[in-house]
Amino acid sequence: RIMRPDDANIAGNVHGGTILKMIEEAGAIISTRHCNSQAGEPCVAALARVERTDFLSPMCIGEVANVSAEITYTSRHSVEVQVNVMSENILTGAKKLTNKATLWYVPLSLKNVNKVLEVPPIQYTRKEQEDEGKKRYEEQKLDRLETKQRNGDVIFPIINPEPHTVGYSQSSLIHLVGPSDCTLLGFVHGGVTMKLMDEVAGIVAARHCKTNIVTASVDAINFHEKIKKGCVITISGRMTFTSNKSMEIEVFVDADPFLDEPRERYRAVSAFFTYVSLSKEGKPLPVPQLLTETEDEKRRFEEGKGRYLQTKAKRQAQMQQAAQQ
Amino acid sequence: RIMRPDDANIAGNVHGGTILKMIEEAGAIISTRHCNSQAGEPCVAALARVERTDFLSPMCIGEVANVSAEITYTSRHSVEVQVNVMSENILTGAKKLTNKATLWYVPLSLKNVNKVLEVPPIQYTRKEQEDEGKKRYEEQKLDRLETKQRNGDVIFPIINPEPHTVGYSQSSLIHLVGPSDCTLLGFVHGGVTMKLMDEVAGIVAARHCKTNIVTASVDAINFHEKIKKGCVITISGRMTFTSNKSMEIEVFVDADPFLDEPRERYRAVSAFFTYVSLSKEGKPLPVPQLLTETEDEKRRFEEGKGRYLQTKAKRQAQMQQAAQQ
Amino acid sequence: RIMRPDDANIAGNVHGGTILKMIEEAGAIISTRHCNSQAGEPCVAALARVERTDFLSPMCIGEVANVSAEITYTSRHSVEVQVNVMSENILTGAKKLTNKATLWYVPLSLKNVNKVLEVPPIQYTRKEQEDEGKKRYEEQKLDRLETKQRNGDVIFPIINPEPHTVGYSQSSLIHLVGPSDCTLLGFVHGGVTMKLMDEVAGIVAARHCKTNIVTASVDAINFHEKIKKGCVITISGRMTFTSNKSMEIEVFVDADPFLDEPRERYRAVSAFFTYVSLSKEGKPLPVPQLLTETEDEKRRFEEGKGRYLQTKAKRQAQMQQAAQQ
Repeated sequence: RIMRPDDANIAGNVHGGTILKMIEEAGAIISTRHCNSQAGEPCVAALARVERTDFLSPMCIGEVANVSAEITYTSRHSVEVQVNVMSENILTGAKKLTNKATLWYVPLSLKNVNKVLEVPPIQYTRKEQEDEGKKRYEEQKLDRLETKQRNGDVIFPIINPEPHTVGYSQSSLIHLVGPSDCTLLGFVHGGVTMKLMDEVAGIVAARHCKTNIVTASVDAINFHEKIKKGCVITISGRMTFTSNKSMEIEVFVDADPFLDEPRERYRAVSAFFTYVSLSKEGKPLPVPQLLTETEDEKRRFEEGKGRYLQTKAKRQAQMQQAAQQ
Repeated sequence: RIMRPDDANIAGNVHGGTILKMIEEAGAIISTRHCNSQAGEPCVAALARVERTDFLSPMCIGEVANVSAEITYTSRHSVEVQVNVMSENILTGAKKLTNKATLWYVPLSLKNVNKVLEVPPIQYTRKEQEDEGKKRYEEQKLDRLETKQRNGDVIFPIINPEPHTVGYSQSSLIHLVGPSDCTLLGFVHGGVTMKLMDEVAGIVAARHCKTNIVTASVDAINFHEKIKKGCVITISGRMTFTSNKSMEIEVFVDADPFLDEPRERYRAVSAFFTYVSLSKEGKPLPVPQLLTETEDEKRRFEEGKGRYLQTKAKRQAQMQQAAQQ
Repeated sequence: RIMRPDDANIAGNVHGGTILKMIEEAGAIISTRHCNSQAGEPCVAALARVERTDFLSPMCIGEVANVSAEITYTSRHSVEVQVNVMSENILTGAKKLTNKATLWYVPLSLKNVNKVLEVPPIQYTRKEQEDEGKKRYEEQKLDRLETKQRNGDVIFPIINPEPHTVGYSQSSLIHLVGPSDCTLLGFVHGGVTMKLMDEVAGIVAARHCKTNIVTASVDAINFHEKIKKGCVITISGRMTFTSNKSMEIEVFVDADPFLDEPRERYRAVSAFFTYVSLSKEGKPLPVPQLLTETEDEKRRFEEGKGRYLQTKAKRQAQMQQAAQQ
């Protein structure tokens, strides 16, 4: 579809959240279709996890987004989908790869939402494809267990914060979950959640550096807990780390099912977003360093640095590998 | 994309206007891409005309709309696009053809919006394709000249109208044209206009028969006049004819460019929409007959009857032809 | 237009904010059109004030909202518009008056946004209309001066609040102002701001009483300060008062023009919203009493009680007057 002013910031760059929402919708369609392809209980594929995603080049208003999705692996209860997004300038015909994303879906029964159904297996053209898929499946399973830990944190507001401290840019928004946000099962689409997360993370980044910012990457996101129609969700973001030219923002989503008496507010999702600041010519600008004050902030900064260096090393290894091939 | 509650009426049937908007967007993308495929002035394809469109089967919330578009003819200054919409129930895998539409686009220069550019010719696989396209091109050109006449009419509100008279159901809405309604040239997308027209026509039909109604067809629409960002548009609809099971509604779009001093309010588009009333099981219901009062209403009713009989005859001829093949 | 699922809460009642937004759009169109009706500088009418508005009956999904607007008074630099909203059930034909609102607009030059232009005078059919209009004009002018004071307050979050305290239900959201939120001048539509304010107030009310709530009335709102495209706005709400069957919520809008270096965050709007809790049959329910803890909270509760009793007295006086006529 054609990107509109509403999909973009005032510099004309399409929000990363809009792209994530399109990716998730494509993934949900292909995996729901696949999981219903054999006779059996009807089901809806629910997003369980999105792997780390890089935004390779910014998309602009007036360009057309081409989204293509393919099922690349199936385990007994989950489906791996690869989604590619190309931006196309229909005036010049130029096409650019914007995103390559990997998503994991789980089929939930339409009759009983707590029942996970079996996934019809796909055919692999080569045996290695199945083995590599299995390896990715095991890796993400491990990783999902790990992130279950980091759930207690809450963001408290700071009064009269100094510029470039954590408290200076931290932001949160609330949203009442309406019918258009939800799947047939009455739970929030993963893509809607990611769009709101990107919105908050983008405001944190813009408040910190006061320039035009764009999403550079999103770390793996696990959707441990479903969010029901009628909930109030609070999406909070705080900056955790800055390198010379990037900012890392941690985003939490807390759901408050206030209409269901016994249920308490709970952490539904959390993730790290990385942003860069762009000049008018689209070149990356240096960003102001984050000033850490408390012990927790210093610890989180070091952890963020670890993630940053690890990603950098991985990317260099990939580039060397690509150069050798 | 997946159909959401907002795309549909309270019975869960997707609005014809939502489908028309998707069709027009697909047509605008493919024809803008084609018109820029050769080196030359960059341009945007503007919708000039939509041929009569039948809604073959209703689409529902939760279904996926698959839209495919193909360029089928090019004249020197215009492009004919055929768009097919399939509705897919991803739970059962069932697919149905919802619409087949034919649209005509004209390339306007990005630098000078009043300049119509030349269209790169397409290759035809068979000579007959070109000849048939040329015939369609000549026919629509003739038809476009005719409709230029019917522009003076205005809809006046009636106080305390009797049930089932024209005044009883006539309706109008105003809309301020915002940035998301517009193309890169700053003019309203044809699809946005058609969606608003369907909204008004649907209100007229529902007021008349007070049941669940769906769009059955839209007569050819000519886009004679562009509508600029910042205009206020008034969309008015009145019922012109009823058969046993269908209602014909005439819709006008008037644009008021109140910020541009010299320009007066003008008629931008007009069209006939046909609606049917559906029972809970999706079967067509009889509709109350329209009560005509004035001479003009009686004349319009007869004209509507003419269109109705002509369409019916055409459809029967097509069915006979199909049966013979 | 027809009310859609997205316009309403999960019980099917249309959000008061959606109605306020339609009212403001109608007012902006009629007053911009009027102010441009004489030769001169083109201008856009900006909302300066909305008088107290009562929501007389709830509107539901599937109903049609009929909005009519009329200019009732003009001073040298401002226009008074009366807007009526009727809800129409198109299945039964039943119509109900939902709202009567009075709005004040000021024409700002399209070339120089800080220049207020002159308003062409309207013709009155009776001399008393002009005198009464002038009286309303003077009254609102006075009232606008008063509210300029109440601007310093900030809402701080409370950790682990007790149920039914002020801290328990207070809420805030941030919103990045995009192009679709803005007029041609690049400033946020008053109606967009009111819709966001109603969204926050509704979440505060729902958190407090955990039932289906609807907007009952909105106190006069003054738009002292414009909000520019690209700003981040924070909308915060806290409960100030509860009667047996109603809740009063104070809402603040703070704008942070973070891209414009010299400009600081400022209070753009504030207002009081009153909500009632409805049973499934649409009858008003008793609401839990607000527990006030601090001195400020107790003072605000007393002030809210004052407003409540004043409004009640005024309404009774009007009903007696109506009974005598």
